[in-house]
Amino acid sequence: MNAYLLTVGDEILIGQVVDTNSSWMAQELNDIGCHIVEKASVADEHQPIMEALHHAFKKADIILMTGGLGPTKDDITKKVLADFFGVGMVFSEVTYTRIQRFFERMDRPVREAHRLQCYMPANAELLTNTLGTAPGMLFSNNTNKMLVSMPGVPYEMKQIMKDEVLPRLKSTFKTQPIAHRTLLTAGHGETHIAEKLGQFESALPSFLKLSYLPNLGQVRLRLTGKYHDERQLNYHLDRHVKEIEALLPGWIFGRETETLEEVVGKSLTKKGLTIGTAESCTGGNIAARLVSIPGASHYYQGSVIAYANRMKILELSVSPKTIQEYGAVSEQTVRSMVRGALTKLDVDIAVAISGIAGPSGGSPDKPVGTVFVAVGDKNRQEVHHLKLGTDRSKNIEYATNYALYMTWQFLEGYL
Amino acid sequence: MNAYLLTVGDEILIGQVVDTNSSWMAQELNDIGCHIVEKASVADEHQPIMEALHHAFKKADIILMTGGLGPTKDDITKKVLADFFGVGMVFSEVTYTRIQRFFERMDRPVREAHRLQCYMPANAELLTNTLGTAPGMLFSNNTNKMLVSMPGVPYEMKQIMKDEVLPRLKSTFKTQPIAHRTLLTAGHGETHIAEKLGQFESALPSFLKLSYLPNLGQVRLRLTGKYHDERQLNYHLDRHVKEIEALLPGWIFGRETETLEEVVGKSLTKKGLTIGTAESCTGGNIAARLVSIPGASHYYQGSVIAYANRMKILELSVSPKTIQEYGAVSEQTVRSMVRGALTKLDVDIAVAISGIAGPSGGSPDKPVGTVFVAVGDKNRQEVHHLKLGTDRSKNIEYATNYALYMTWQFLEGYL
Repeated sequence: MNAYLLTVGDEILIGQVVDTNSSWMAQELNDIGCHIVEKASVADEHQPIMEALHHAFKKADIILMTGGLGPTKDDITKKVLADFFGVGMVFSEVTYTRIQRFFERMDRPVREAHRLQCYMPANAELLTNTLGTAPGMLFSNNTNKMLVSMPGVPYEMKQIMKDEVLPRLKSTFKTQPIAHRTLLTAGHGETHIAEKLGQFESALPSFLKLSYLPNLGQVRLRLTGKYHDERQLNYHLDRHVKEIEALLPGWIFGRETETLEEVVGKSLTKKGLTIGTAESCTGGNIAARLVSIPGASHYYQGSVIAYANRMKILELSVSPKTIQEYGAVSEQTVRSMVRGALTKLDVDIAVAISGIAGPSGGSPDKPVGTVFVAVGDKNRQEVHHLKLGTDRSKNIEYATNYALYMTWQFLEGYL
Repeated sequence: MNAYLLTVGDEILIGQVVDTNSSWMAQELNDIGCHIVEKASVADEHQPIMEALHHAFKKADIILMTGGLGPTKDDITKKVLADFFGVGMVFSEVTYTRIQRFFERMDRPVREAHRLQCYMPANAELLTNTLGTAPGMLFSNNTNKMLVSMPGVPYEMKQIMKDEVLPRLKSTFKTQPIAHRTLLTAGHGETHIAEKLGQFESALPSFLKLSYLPNLGQVRLRLTGKYHDERQLNYHLDRHVKEIEALLPGWIFGRETETLEEVVGKSLTKKGLTIGTAESCTGGNIAARLVSIPGASHYYQGSVIAYANRMKILELSVSPKTIQEYGAVSEQTVRSMVRGALTKLDVDIAVAISGIAGPSGGSPDKPVGTVFVAVGDKNRQEVHHLKLGTDRSKNIEYATNYALYMTWQFLEGYL
């Protein structure tokens, strides 16, 4: 099964937008055994899109297009597709009704441009877009080739891919069984993990492959297998996953698409505990990650973001003497912030963080990237000292990941 | 001057790497008036690269390739280029000497794979790579077309582009001046903006083009122009930018690559004001966005994240009666949260937000997606009521953008 990815849009060709859609699509397609032969981007213009379609149909069985479906004048993909297939445009009542409801919910009027958006190539099978106005379109035309056109807005494209496109591809095309297991680690570098897994990797059978996907303090380990017998394949994958788990005790916090905030939430729910945060350099990022989980209200109560020192003193009862003696970025201060948050927010567990995120503000003693993270309950607080780089946003994200990882370890008895 | 970007490498087609090279290249090329007609990515295999080269030469005058020049077996770009031009490979002493010095400096041995890297297509003009082993290659072959092949390592590619490729393109090809202006709007949909700009767009001269780039409550407007006279072009762009600004008073918060948190920060700094946030459904996202700006400590002080109702009462002095009577998600509650935050955090400006982010928790009266945002100082608080969708993370991001936009409007006197 060969696929061709085609993106339409001037914004990609002038470099205003980095195309993250196609790497996401590539990963999803690979997961179902679909091989991408080429990807291309062309301008929002009739002839280039037309030529690209002819080219793509020569190269692959499945063509996945994104972009050019919006309500404005520069969006011409639908018109080109109608010309390519030699069909007219028809008005889709179903789409119009859906768009009307979509705007009704938001209490906004349906505009003329939205009504015009409901004209579709006559041979298109429409794919529901639950997050935006433009539906996806599927063309199969009695051939064994398939073309799908989707909006370029990442979350709309992802929804249509997940709900409509991937299930169809899986059922339409026969693929050699391919399966994956993903284990999620945090707090340890790729090289450190690779050392622990050295012998394991050397002994892997040839139909299994281990990849390391590192990202800001987290490393995803992906075990991929291709085998003629699906049951055997799953058996082997599961057996090797157990081996990895045994080699990395306390390092693997989750599986597949789980996130740190999810596993922390599950652990808190299981134990019936509440949590709050006291943040300085992360400025609410830890709280925001906890709140991103539906149902967070069962365990997440609130936070104090104490960016200025006077907030640490006023809101978290950190003693001015502690700050003066050890500094706002110190083991003593974060420990005190945890205690302050436990009392102030009246929660069972608190996480505190203070650091120098950069790019400036460091000293020889405490350079940019110095971060202290603390987690604890009223009996015990654990503090770790991180030494990060000089990039502000990376430091904030890394420290947030680390704080959530420490929280999970604390809850699960690994800390 | 038309260019074609071609990247070679399996890592892009399996989605392991997001292709940031080509957006950087596109921007640089656009700046010198070079128009990119298409970009494509193909696998590290002989036939796909060969076919892509033929295709690219048909489409453009300049072909810029990256990838496949490393010392490992899967790097075959050079061999394919030699076959494409019908020439043999010759050993480059110059390159070998450079590589030897390169490794001497790092105190590492030159390996056999590196010596083999010194064989180059006979007709290639070599472009010095000061940061890695593989030189760039330029092919011009008595035609008026040009092909450049560069390593895929971003910093190596950028050095070769800046030092070797761009200067040559500028001197070899006469380029038509091209320029862009980007205006950033928030708070209003693409269609709504398009309506306001309908007449303006119809009256645009043919050498100017307007594009809409929407994303979660923000729409970037990009005006692009191509014209033989650069001064005239800039004059026309600036004049039309002023027209857009006049048509959308208070909607345009920034230009080019600015962000909402940046313009809010600039506005606060200019006025010497401090800010704090009181957040429920956004859980610290607004604070985190403010803190993401280096130097935020000059105006950002702290926040209370009051997710649970008791936090709103305890930490922000919202009266239990207000919550009981109007609900935690109401105009009255967010207004009271702003007042509470102003006092509690002792800041000049406060932003408060309360809503039902979803996916559950709604009622017929207040469905999922109901959000109240308030911003104000001790004299005046403004409240807006948003009706969003059902996707939790989109709602949180949209509401955060909206709150920052309202803050900017309040600070600049548009609210």
